[in-house]
Amino acid sequence: MIRIGIFGYGNLGRGVECAVKQNKDMELVAVFTRRDPSTVKILSEGVDVFHADDVLSFKDKIDVMILCGGSATDLPKQTPYLAQYFNVVDSFDTHAKIPEHFENVDTSSRKSGKIGLISVGWDPGMFSLNRALGGSILVDGNDYTFWGKGVSQGHSDAIRRVDGVLDGKQYTVPVDSALEAVRNGKNPTLSTREKHTRECYVVAKDGADKELIEKTIKEMPNYFSDYDTTVNFISQEELNEKHSGIPHGGFVIRSGKTGKDLEHTHIIEYSLKLDSNPEFTASVIVAYARAAYRMNKEGMVGAKTVFDVAPCYISPMSNEEMRKKLL
Amino acid sequence: MIRIGIFGYGNLGRGVECAVKQNKDMELVAVFTRRDPSTVKILSEGVDVFHADDVLSFKDKIDVMILCGGSATDLPKQTPYLAQYFNVVDSFDTHAKIPEHFENVDTSSRKSGKIGLISVGWDPGMFSLNRALGGSILVDGNDYTFWGKGVSQGHSDAIRRVDGVLDGKQYTVPVDSALEAVRNGKNPTLSTREKHTRECYVVAKDGADKELIEKTIKEMPNYFSDYDTTVNFISQEELNEKHSGIPHGGFVIRSGKTGKDLEHTHIIEYSLKLDSNPEFTASVIVAYARAAYRMNKEGMVGAKTVFDVAPCYISPMSNEEMRKKLL
Repeated sequence: MIRIGIFGYGNLGRGVECAVKQNKDMELVAVFTRRDPSTVKILSEGVDVFHADDVLSFKDKIDVMILCGGSATDLPKQTPYLAQYFNVVDSFDTHAKIPEHFENVDTSSRKSGKIGLISVGWDPGMFSLNRALGGSILVDGNDYTFWGKGVSQGHSDAIRRVDGVLDGKQYTVPVDSALEAVRNGKNPTLSTREKHTRECYVVAKDGADKELIEKTIKEMPNYFSDYDTTVNFISQEELNEKHSGIPHGGFVIRSGKTGKDLEHTHIIEYSLKLDSNPEFTASVIVAYARAAYRMNKEGMVGAKTVFDVAPCYISPMSNEEMRKKLL
Repeated sequence: MIRIGIFGYGNLGRGVECAVKQNKDMELVAVFTRRDPSTVKILSEGVDVFHADDVLSFKDKIDVMILCGGSATDLPKQTPYLAQYFNVVDSFDTHAKIPEHFENVDTSSRKSGKIGLISVGWDPGMFSLNRALGGSILVDGNDYTFWGKGVSQGHSDAIRRVDGVLDGKQYTVPVDSALEAVRNGKNPTLSTREKHTRECYVVAKDGADKELIEKTIKEMPNYFSDYDTTVNFISQEELNEKHSGIPHGGFVIRSGKTGKDLEHTHIIEYSLKLDSNPEFTASVIVAYARAAYRMNKEGMVGAKTVFDVAPCYISPMSNEEMRKKLL
């Protein structure tokens, strides 16, 4: 059994807890939180919640620590710290800071002789993997990544900070005609506006100026001004009823050419349609936790990403079984 | 530069030749054929064609030998033989015999201290990889593989063997409604007939009994009797004009559930739309030839499949560049 610890218990932590339960070669040993542990109720019976400060006493009781904190402030500190003591997996997703994060985790993991697997999930993660595979196979070509339809937590937060807004949710939606052009091998050059639209569902406070709210949202720099944005005002009840999920998904498409005169076009498309973004991310992380455990057992150490992990390490099957059933 | 040899020069060999040219870190050293080399014209200038019997004299001049023979009789002998002397990559695709082929290649490769990478292409190959990834991430779920729309060489050959048939081509076509049901997470149980239809384009000889040809094709066991098959009689000119390409493609879909009570459904879909089946297969093989070279340089030996290859080995980018640009 691979002994798993969860560090941080929000949506992602709960997702990891569920995913561990789905994998017969894993067991959840403990959950760690910065809150008062007595206030944190988890789903698993017989598993205790501990304060984050107690984590080092589990040094020999946990094979892989899964970090479920945020990328803005938690993971840049937590992952390098815990990598000094544990095999770790995180879902660090601040793309621009990945090289720096990698270096920090690498230093810690090499000291401890452990594996530090970073930026695991679907983007970064499975989408990155597909960009790598597609570009390696179809050397002459273009990459396209579309996100959605799905809830963007960051954009939903931005809406909720607007004056007069009580609650809100934002969906990122890929533009169908752009997707079709890519799928048909047209290799279009697409602006930000041409790739995605943004759909907002907003609950306004009583007496708030809805026109002003709509204008403020649509003109918000970075978040909305570069997109065609629609703002729909709805009641809190409707928001709760129809928009409480956290669905997401997207598409990674590689369009490339081969042949004597590059006369043949090929399209590789990878897509995800997810009912629950955190639960799917958690499922990817848990599969890669198996890889971290196995790779470390074979003597590998240091920071790794999905690019460094051979697929056999994440599968619950043996290599023989994989060749027989999946190849 | 990675020095490549091509062993066998048909559609796949030509595809490999084109793909090597697209990769700046590779050079084609020689092509080997069992025919009289003087009768084989290749596309590359300055590269010579040699008889297969002369291959061992290239032992120290070629880093990776790419085998482009057939799975029925060529590869079961050629791959284990050449693995005694070279890093090799093949596209062995007789699924049921893969475990045996793997063992044979493994024995040879371990003796020579080389890598023997087998069953590389898209199925087996990229489709296998996606079945492995999907099943590892969504543990509770179902796999679906659909092929097409594309030309099946085996079925086209079967048509051409029918009495009264001059020429013919067969397309395997996935059934749209089945694809949609899978995409919508319905986890249908699908019979052979429900997954694919078969479209035949047939040129009949003058005076041939078309009704009998159609009946013979539709009732042919293994090839057509389990499918809804349509037979279209056309002229040789139309066949040449509209059906001379070798397109193919397909879909690997994983549908799975997560959550406390498995209440959330997720769909992972990988699809290919290929203008040229052999050229795409060749492009995959060439990317994995890079992996064979690099992995052997790091001291790895023995038979491998796509499951054993970390994605970083197939990419022309450095690990740093991959993390920066693709993660």
